[in-house]
Amino acid sequence: MIKPEDLKYDNGLIQAIAQDSETKEILMCAFMNKEALEKTLDTGIVHYWSRSRQSLWKKGESSGHTQKVVEIRIDCDMDAVLLLVRQEGGACHTGYRSCFYRTIDGKEIGEKVFDPENVY
Amino acid sequence: MIKPEDLKYDNGLIQAIAQDSETKEILMCAFMNKEALEKTLDTGIVHYWSRSRQSLWKKGESSGHTQKVVEIRIDCDMDAVLLLVRQEGGACHTGYRSCFYRTIDGKEIGEKVFDPENVY
Repeated sequence: MIKPEDLKYDNGLIQAIAQDSETKEILMCAFMNKEALEKTLDTGIVHYWSRSRQSLWKKGESSGHTQKVVEIRIDCDMDAVLLLVRQEGGACHTGYRSCFYRTIDGKEIGEKVFDPENVY
Repeated sequence: MIKPEDLKYDNGLIQAIAQDSETKEILMCAFMNKEALEKTLDTGIVHYWSRSRQSLWKKGESSGHTQKVVEIRIDCDMDAVLLLVRQEGGACHTGYRSCFYRTIDGKEIGEKVFDPENVY
């Protein structure tokens, strides 16, 4: 059993990756602090730490596009968290299912699942 | 076409996730700086930035367990890189195929693919 306080935070933060538990698609990556991880464990709904807003961030709070926890994995170094989730709607604020919707060559490969103008 | 200099580095670093291009398993996550991304693009072999050693890190340099680039994706905010790779051997220094070989509940779910004592 690994506890939130056992993890190795860098300036209070650890990397967090969200993966669709069924399709295995990577949805997004962000950061968590200890509080965000505790809140995620308590509620079963993914919470991150927003570096830009410097606040706890319940993913999908304004859009309704929440992430329900299916399983949480911890890496060898205890400094990263992999979240297997059920994604409501799309993870990306641009309307794509995944934030990784394009290749470095500029090709758009992602699936657009909502129109951000109707959501935000 | 996105160039390494177009990305948004935080203290010179961006998050990098390696995913098996076939099984979609998340193998590891780490950081890259601009040089590591350039070297990865130039060689087709994944390079990271080691925060602990403060140096460019060719993944698999000592173990032979390299990661061959299949595709590189960039996220919406231009501050994270998803590497779809062909992993030689295992990504994790503990001998597992993936660094995320256990759940937060302490259950080991990963596949052990080599004995670290024979490799390092």
